[in-house]
Amino acid sequence: MPTPSKPNAEDPNARDTVDLDETARVVKALIDSGANGILTLGSLGEVATLTWDEKRDFMKALVEAAGGRVPVFGGTSTLSTRTTIDETRAARDIGVDGTMVGPPMWCAPDVPTAVQFYRDLAEACPDMSICIYANPEAFKFEFPRPFWAQVSEIPQVVTAKYLGIGALVPDLNLTKRRIRFLPIDIDYYAAAKIDPEFCTAFWSSGAVCGPNPVIALRDAVAQAKTSGDWSKAEELTGAMAQTYQTLFPQGSFKVFSSYNIPLEKARMDAAGWTKAGPCRPPYNIVPEDYLEGGRESGRRWAKLHKSLA
Amino acid sequence: MPTPSKPNAEDPNARDTVDLDETARVVKALIDSGANGILTLGSLGEVATLTWDEKRDFMKALVEAAGGRVPVFGGTSTLSTRTTIDETRAARDIGVDGTMVGPPMWCAPDVPTAVQFYRDLAEACPDMSICIYANPEAFKFEFPRPFWAQVSEIPQVVTAKYLGIGALVPDLNLTKRRIRFLPIDIDYYAAAKIDPEFCTAFWSSGAVCGPNPVIALRDAVAQAKTSGDWSKAEELTGAMAQTYQTLFPQGSFKVFSSYNIPLEKARMDAAGWTKAGPCRPPYNIVPEDYLEGGRESGRRWAKLHKSLA
Amino acid sequence: MPTPSKPNAEDPNARDTVDLDETARVVKALIDSGANGILTLGSLGEVATLTWDEKRDFMKALVEAAGGRVPVFGGTSTLSTRTTIDETRAARDIGVDGTMVGPPMWCAPDVPTAVQFYRDLAEACPDMSICIYANPEAFKFEFPRPFWAQVSEIPQVVTAKYLGIGALVPDLNLTKRRIRFLPIDIDYYAAAKIDPEFCTAFWSSGAVCGPNPVIALRDAVAQAKTSGDWSKAEELTGAMAQTYQTLFPQGSFKVFSSYNIPLEKARMDAAGWTKAGPCRPPYNIVPEDYLEGGRESGRRWAKLHKSLA
Amino acid sequence: MPTPSKPNAEDPNARDTVDLDETARVVKALIDSGANGILTLGSLGEVATLTWDEKRDFMKALVEAAGGRVPVFGGTSTLSTRTTIDETRAARDIGVDGTMVGPPMWCAPDVPTAVQFYRDLAEACPDMSICIYANPEAFKFEFPRPFWAQVSEIPQVVTAKYLGIGALVPDLNLTKRRIRFLPIDIDYYAAAKIDPEFCTAFWSSGAVCGPNPVIALRDAVAQAKTSGDWSKAEELTGAMAQTYQTLFPQGSFKVFSSYNIPLEKARMDAAGWTKAGPCRPPYNIVPEDYLEGGRESGRRWAKLHKSLA
Repeated sequence: MPTPSKPNAEDPNARDTVDLDETARVVKALIDSGANGILTLGSLGEVATLTWDEKRDFMKALVEAAGGRVPVFGGTSTLSTRTTIDETRAARDIGVDGTMVGPPMWCAPDVPTAVQFYRDLAEACPDMSICIYANPEAFKFEFPRPFWAQVSEIPQVVTAKYLGIGALVPDLNLTKRRIRFLPIDIDYYAAAKIDPEFCTAFWSSGAVCGPNPVIALRDAVAQAKTSGDWSKAEELTGAMAQTYQTLFPQGSFKVFSSYNIPLEKARMDAAGWTKAGPCRPPYNIVPEDYLEGGRESGRRWAKLHKSLA
Repeated sequence: MPTPSKPNAEDPNARDTVDLDETARVVKALIDSGANGILTLGSLGEVATLTWDEKRDFMKALVEAAGGRVPVFGGTSTLSTRTTIDETRAARDIGVDGTMVGPPMWCAPDVPTAVQFYRDLAEACPDMSICIYANPEAFKFEFPRPFWAQVSEIPQVVTAKYLGIGALVPDLNLTKRRIRFLPIDIDYYAAAKIDPEFCTAFWSSGAVCGPNPVIALRDAVAQAKTSGDWSKAEELTGAMAQTYQTLFPQGSFKVFSSYNIPLEKARMDAAGWTKAGPCRPPYNIVPEDYLEGGRESGRRWAKLHKSLA
Repeated sequence: MPTPSKPNAEDPNARDTVDLDETARVVKALIDSGANGILTLGSLGEVATLTWDEKRDFMKALVEAAGGRVPVFGGTSTLSTRTTIDETRAARDIGVDGTMVGPPMWCAPDVPTAVQFYRDLAEACPDMSICIYANPEAFKFEFPRPFWAQVSEIPQVVTAKYLGIGALVPDLNLTKRRIRFLPIDIDYYAAAKIDPEFCTAFWSSGAVCGPNPVIALRDAVAQAKTSGDWSKAEELTGAMAQTYQTLFPQGSFKVFSSYNIPLEKARMDAAGWTKAGPCRPPYNIVPEDYLEGGRESGRRWAKLHKSLA
Repeated sequence: MPTPSKPNAEDPNARDTVDLDETARVVKALIDSGANGILTLGSLGEVATLTWDEKRDFMKALVEAAGGRVPVFGGTSTLSTRTTIDETRAARDIGVDGTMVGPPMWCAPDVPTAVQFYRDLAEACPDMSICIYANPEAFKFEFPRPFWAQVSEIPQVVTAKYLGIGALVPDLNLTKRRIRFLPIDIDYYAAAKIDPEFCTAFWSSGAVCGPNPVIALRDAVAQAKTSGDWSKAEELTGAMAQTYQTLFPQGSFKVFSSYNIPLEKARMDAAGWTKAGPCRPPYNIVPEDYLEGGRESGRRWAKLHKSLA
């Protein structure tokens, strides 16, 4: 989910920009709709551009609103091992169950540097679950197989926000199924068919555009695992894919990565289920035609959501 | 399969470097082993560094050795639409069933440029099947979804050598299942589970290191489709993945892409089933430790091949 | 200079597309205007997309038109060391004085691979002068300092088409001034001030938009070297830079590199001094607003050219 | 200059790792040696991996030790416009004269985003001088010409740490000489020859390996501007370039950019003039042969420094 913002969040002089009421409302609505967990403070959660005070207040609101009903993950990616450790310790004290974190990205890390980062974090915060945030564009890192083999030895690393399912089978093997990879919603059908027993979860930024499609997908996959009939899950995947068609400018993930924050927030606002609000600077500037692609994606999702009510 | 080379192939003054006897032997041995088709003249087939005369002679030998028993694909990637058309017409006259081609890569193409390239090729060679060679590092192109949606409108585009299965489900939908994507051997298990009816083929550079593992995989997947028991296919996939562990320097696809030709040929020569021979210049130079990783990968595959005899 | 094309050059089925009359006219006009040499068959000379027959005919016309009055360089970049050697030998037989060549770019080369390529070429063509074509985007290569130190040991490597002057002083030292770097026209003023004795030449694609600005620049620099008054050279450089402002889409060299061929040819055609003609496929497709930036750049140059008549 | 660290700075649990005594000593020694300004908290100043408390304490020590004798620049690059504003305001209260800042780099910015970032910063901190930190690898940004043209309209942008001199003349023109570009030490000779009146300063990480070479260079250039004899400046540039030869792994700026922090600190420690100390995590891991190249570079510089005593 995003970090909902107040109307003035684009103003570089604004502080305290988190809309905590909307935060609480969305968390509760997601859980009431059947979400099994809350993942926050990634790219589109604006982890990069929030102040620490805002991240702290947001995580407090998150924990309070969830009330222990489902696990909640905060996010503590920063430019520094030590600052990530400090924020992760504070996040644990606030009561989140885990943290989604990518490696510092001032320099492009090599495998030993990225692995050591997660080792240091796990050692400093032994009672915190870690979700590896495997975004190659943000973190200047390929997340190659030797990385997965090594980080899977760290007990606190329990899951990973994982782009695509391209290397899923080898990565599952290399990690001895100790890391539960979370594919994106439209890849879940494929992942679940590949390994029905282990691939039991996914992430979705569409959920906050209206949760019905992903809840329906989750249930359709669960049924398919027993019935063997995957047609409903496949159909839902195709319907969700239709909504994504306008989200990626020029169909390019690389171009999308320059604008993913405002595009995702525009998508959410157009869908109308969450008030994501304006983007914190400097990511509030985006070509209008790209933005319209984001909004159209949101409107399509909203329609799908309604059709599944 | 590679383009087997004579011992002097590293010499910049050597011409006529194709070992045509070994070519014929390997083609026949692959077909005798049960291969359903022959795919040639990609990166490791040294399409870039062969002279046209060599490519022509190789394709002739290929067609003759296959004797119509299975479809054979040549390769006609060049720096120019028109040269690719000329070579493709000549390839058709030689008698290959199709050609594997990537777009010219002097400039990084945008989507309209890449699509128009395939349209021009198909129009100029209407009776030639096209396999899209979707290698992002070689062709400076992401092969994004709008590309697939558009090239699937071209009737001659029947298949694609496809890296990973990351976007397989959306790409299958966008292309309306008109392009039969060929994943690599270790991704076939996953692809076949995702779409058992449509995903019925794969490519393998391991086949020429000893075909038993991939023939066994093909058959195990075929059986699983009726029996529902995928354990044999999964086990074979895991065993093959073990052999790949030393092939990628630093585990990186990007680094591998600088050396894939000599590494793959070293792997084949170490396996001993094919005499791939030395690399044509300039791709005959590679750090020794990378090379040893390639050889070790070959020895592991050979062992697996023997265990399945 | 470009390789002037006949009106049908965009047609994938057209062969023999070189406008040999315009080629001869432009060569003579350049020499009559005072050009000290002719450099051809780089990116905008469409070396990638010409057939060998066209390159051969173009080089023949070039040599004949120049008539020995100034040195002429052809271009023989290909995907293969051996094909480059074959074409370079043929170019020598045609009578060009040298060849501009970049390394094969199917795989991104490392330093030993790129150096060995030039060694092989020089050994195979000992009586041919080599101009290194140092274009990082085309050749997937950084052209780092160790490369220059090593290729400067090859006697045939006499010059280099060099982007920017960023590393000029160290590169001059490393190469012991054995390679005469050719900066682009607007960098010549700076290069000549840095090393007036050694930096005595530059390249220009503007020359074929009307040669007056670059001839005036050459002469202004020559005068400044004795008079010490560089103001005229500086002023011309500023005036030329004004014409470049609209040539680079979004001001980006990386984006420009995807479209440099059609943009440069549109610039030339708009300037009206050379009939560059349409682009050979696949580089004939370009967004209209980028194209208009190219044309505007040409019109500005033409105005400058006229003002210096 | 670096941010000198205490012996335990590699420990992820260490806080308060700045060696403030060494900081004060180096600042004073640089000024006593003739340095005209102090530039800090860039990549090798570990701006990314210091905690805010450490940056604050370091800047306080810097200001106190400089005692107003020369201008001092701190650094406030962060992942967020607003955090950079907060830190810049605090830096101004501490008393630094300016701040060196690059744009947030979670997403690769486009030109409008990067320009707006500097506008927002300048508006929020109107009495603070800004040095643009133009590092393409760190900030995922080309810093193209339209960027320079636009940021030069911001009065607070007075200087830029500038890599290379590749586009210096056009950039000087576009910015109407309102931004004083600082080339690196070995590019100063060239920049000063190009524009003796405007190019009057440079930056150097070698200065803290022993300031004699750069002080001598500065003075040699100053003399050359009146005498017209540049030979001494050229000789010093060549001598400094010798020391750099081992600093860049494989001669590659891209590879260097992954390890520049530990390599520069190892260089300084080997030179012996500054105790740079260990690197803060995660940038304390580096291949041993790269590290030895850094140390050798430092030893060479130290020798040059002594020879000029």
